[in-house]
Amino acid sequence: MVMLTRLPVQWGRRMYSASTSGAVPAAKKKYVPTSGTYPRGFQVSGTVVGVKPGNTTKPDLAFITSDRPCAAAAVFTKNKFQAAPVTFSRSLLQRKNNAGLQGVLINSGCANAVTGKGGLEDAEAMATEADKSLGADKATIVMSTGVIGQRRVAAHERVTNDSRANTHQITHQEDPGQRFSICTTDTFPKLISKSFSLPSSPSVEYRIAGMTKGAGMIHPNMATLLGVIATDAPIASAVMPGLLKHAVDKSFNSITIDGDTSTNDTVALLANGAAGGKEVSSASSEDYRAFQTVLSEFSTDLAKLIVRDGEGATKFVTINVTESSSEQGARKIASTIARSPLVKTALYGKDANWGRILCATGYSLISEPGGSAENEITEIIPEKTNVSFVPSDGSPELKLLVDGEPEMVDETRAAQILEHEDLEILVRLGTGKEKATYWTCDYSHEYITINGDYRT
Amino acid sequence: MVMLTRLPVQWGRRMYSASTSGAVPAAKKKYVPTSGTYPRGFQVSGTVVGVKPGNTTKPDLAFITSDRPCAAAAVFTKNKFQAAPVTFSRSLLQRKNNAGLQGVLINSGCANAVTGKGGLEDAEAMATEADKSLGADKATIVMSTGVIGQRRVAAHERVTNDSRANTHQITHQEDPGQRFSICTTDTFPKLISKSFSLPSSPSVEYRIAGMTKGAGMIHPNMATLLGVIATDAPIASAVMPGLLKHAVDKSFNSITIDGDTSTNDTVALLANGAAGGKEVSSASSEDYRAFQTVLSEFSTDLAKLIVRDGEGATKFVTINVTESSSEQGARKIASTIARSPLVKTALYGKDANWGRILCATGYSLISEPGGSAENEITEIIPEKTNVSFVPSDGSPELKLLVDGEPEMVDETRAAQILEHEDLEILVRLGTGKEKATYWTCDYSHEYITINGDYRT
Repeated sequence: MVMLTRLPVQWGRRMYSASTSGAVPAAKKKYVPTSGTYPRGFQVSGTVVGVKPGNTTKPDLAFITSDRPCAAAAVFTKNKFQAAPVTFSRSLLQRKNNAGLQGVLINSGCANAVTGKGGLEDAEAMATEADKSLGADKATIVMSTGVIGQRRVAAHERVTNDSRANTHQITHQEDPGQRFSICTTDTFPKLISKSFSLPSSPSVEYRIAGMTKGAGMIHPNMATLLGVIATDAPIASAVMPGLLKHAVDKSFNSITIDGDTSTNDTVALLANGAAGGKEVSSASSEDYRAFQTVLSEFSTDLAKLIVRDGEGATKFVTINVTESSSEQGARKIASTIARSPLVKTALYGKDANWGRILCATGYSLISEPGGSAENEITEIIPEKTNVSFVPSDGSPELKLLVDGEPEMVDETRAAQILEHEDLEILVRLGTGKEKATYWTCDYSHEYITINGDYRT
Repeated sequence: MVMLTRLPVQWGRRMYSASTSGAVPAAKKKYVPTSGTYPRGFQVSGTVVGVKPGNTTKPDLAFITSDRPCAAAAVFTKNKFQAAPVTFSRSLLQRKNNAGLQGVLINSGCANAVTGKGGLEDAEAMATEADKSLGADKATIVMSTGVIGQRRVAAHERVTNDSRANTHQITHQEDPGQRFSICTTDTFPKLISKSFSLPSSPSVEYRIAGMTKGAGMIHPNMATLLGVIATDAPIASAVMPGLLKHAVDKSFNSITIDGDTSTNDTVALLANGAAGGKEVSSASSEDYRAFQTVLSEFSTDLAKLIVRDGEGATKFVTINVTESSSEQGARKIASTIARSPLVKTALYGKDANWGRILCATGYSLISEPGGSAENEITEIIPEKTNVSFVPSDGSPELKLLVDGEPEMVDETRAAQILEHEDLEILVRLGTGKEKATYWTCDYSHEYITINGDYRT
């Protein structure tokens, strides 16, 4: 395994960040941890293999490993065009029954998506070389990110050659710290960690760390995001998929940047049990519920960092839809507001144009022409709908719509609220007790610049 | 009725057009007709009533009338928050059984949406005053456009007062020409006209004219668009709704600019029979089918002008999805590609990033988390999917993906194709015989500027 020599791993290209120097923008520095409590038995490394021709300076291969076999699960994109590493890794986890995994190998510079049979062979070859360096068999899942539809055979040969060449560099890193992070168009590394305990083993300190990357092509199911969460808690392989799916639905599947869903999205969870204690094995146990809560909250914190770093974003906006007659309806409404270009541009313009929020609410459950159900929006009754801005400074909410009637809005107050980076949009439907939360950002000129010119 | 004194009616604010002088941008002039064949018996007028405080120069009230009763139909937004004029006009058409209508009164500067009971009274009052000037009873439908959630009582009083005050100015206009058009953020008036004949009366020259406005908040079901189509052909009231719905599904419901669907969208069809000839009354008649074709093609030409003038747009892109196992699936895929921010920004950047097109295709039929069906995308089989750019100059298509395998793309050729304003993206699914077409534009910096600052 190659060893990381740079902290943090800033991986692939990020030429469009607010700072072209590659440094973390001043406003984002507060999100980058300077210390952490990292799970025992995991190591992480990054190296420059030159997946993209001409890259000789930026690490573009990361390898996260455990010193012992892990229970593992992953949630993958539902895009019909699934990248080769997605196909490979899903199949591997199935064959291994979510047990006996030991590594995650990630490359940037090539998504290895829509690359046909050859691409699948590339993904397998990467994993096989990683397995060799681990001294394990079929123990590595693979993730890739980059431009779709280009097969970089030469690069993948370098990836595998490099993994092999560098196996002598294995170094044990008890506290990998910030190197446990990856970036592409991201402007800052997204890494968090925490410690927790479980009811049955109150004296054991468990640790969990997670890293994720992704700044565009972000929408549920899932996003151009890759994520790895590792814990030293002992979790039975059988309960891993359910735990991860629950956590992802409320976190990575509840964020949007642009509504696009990529071919490569993957979030993986590894649990190596290195901290000892009683294994979490039954979904009805107290430990299970406790860990589920820890994992869901942790995943939410991690996913929010993605929105915080949305391409070109100047705002971080929480959309809360409450008092819905169905959770599914609340989710759809929150998602629709969160992805509305008109809402997102108004937020960028600091414009209290709540009409656009209402407009998005109103069309959120509408089927497209040709769809089967027409206008079945039982969750919304206009006369019961309330919309407010909730300021991030703890001051009282600003009511915009009360029971379907517009308020005379204090525009000065609205402008003050919209000056803050953080904002909550609260939609109370008044038709039930279900709710949903989404996180989104605004659309700025920078978003257009980044995405009008990403590939070239 | 007030008489129009300016040609064309440039109505409401359009401060963000490429030309701040209010003149039609040079590149758009070719879309503005200098002559036309307008239906007999229709008149149109525009006047300045000052719906927005301080507006003393721009016409903000339009009135389209017929000198005799018309068969009429309208298609309205499916947004749950429907503007007062939508509620009023839908109800009126129902009560009148689509017969006996004579006028369409349209104001800008106030959407009269989310304005409660008072807003509905405003809409009714506008219609009543218009009826008086027509000497007719319950014969006027109403449309409004502007900011949502503001009730401009004073303005609506001015609207009705002005309609009354100006009734002495009625002037017969056999050929209203360009005045039959409206603009808000539009950069050019959208008006077309043509003549046609029907099989049973081959010697009668029928005429049809249509105008529409809308440049943002455009997506099926429907868009922030208003449209009026008038013909002097004799169409029975009973068949009007079916004719219009069919035409709108393939035209106004097949365009997207930003995916937002507004509270006010309305397209109305009026037929006054002033040209004489045999009435089109049976849906199984040859005349019906002929007129259906005329109306659908005409509506498509009109709808395409909306995309041509998309806020900040530099590209006009046709998305053709063919060889689908279902029309609904083809529509959903075309719609998803058409609204993908990453596709739209790549088009703006003239980047042949077909991976984004494929990515959008792949997620187009995915249900959101919490939805019932998961990944039921029978229309797409990756190995059968083909994607091409079809140049607008008639030169051969540029194949990007062939049977799921990426082509070695000639980037120079791709760049040449993307230099043109017009482009066709062709997706062949290889799974059936159904197809769908959408029209879209790109996302530019100008779009963000316009919408980040529209209301303020």
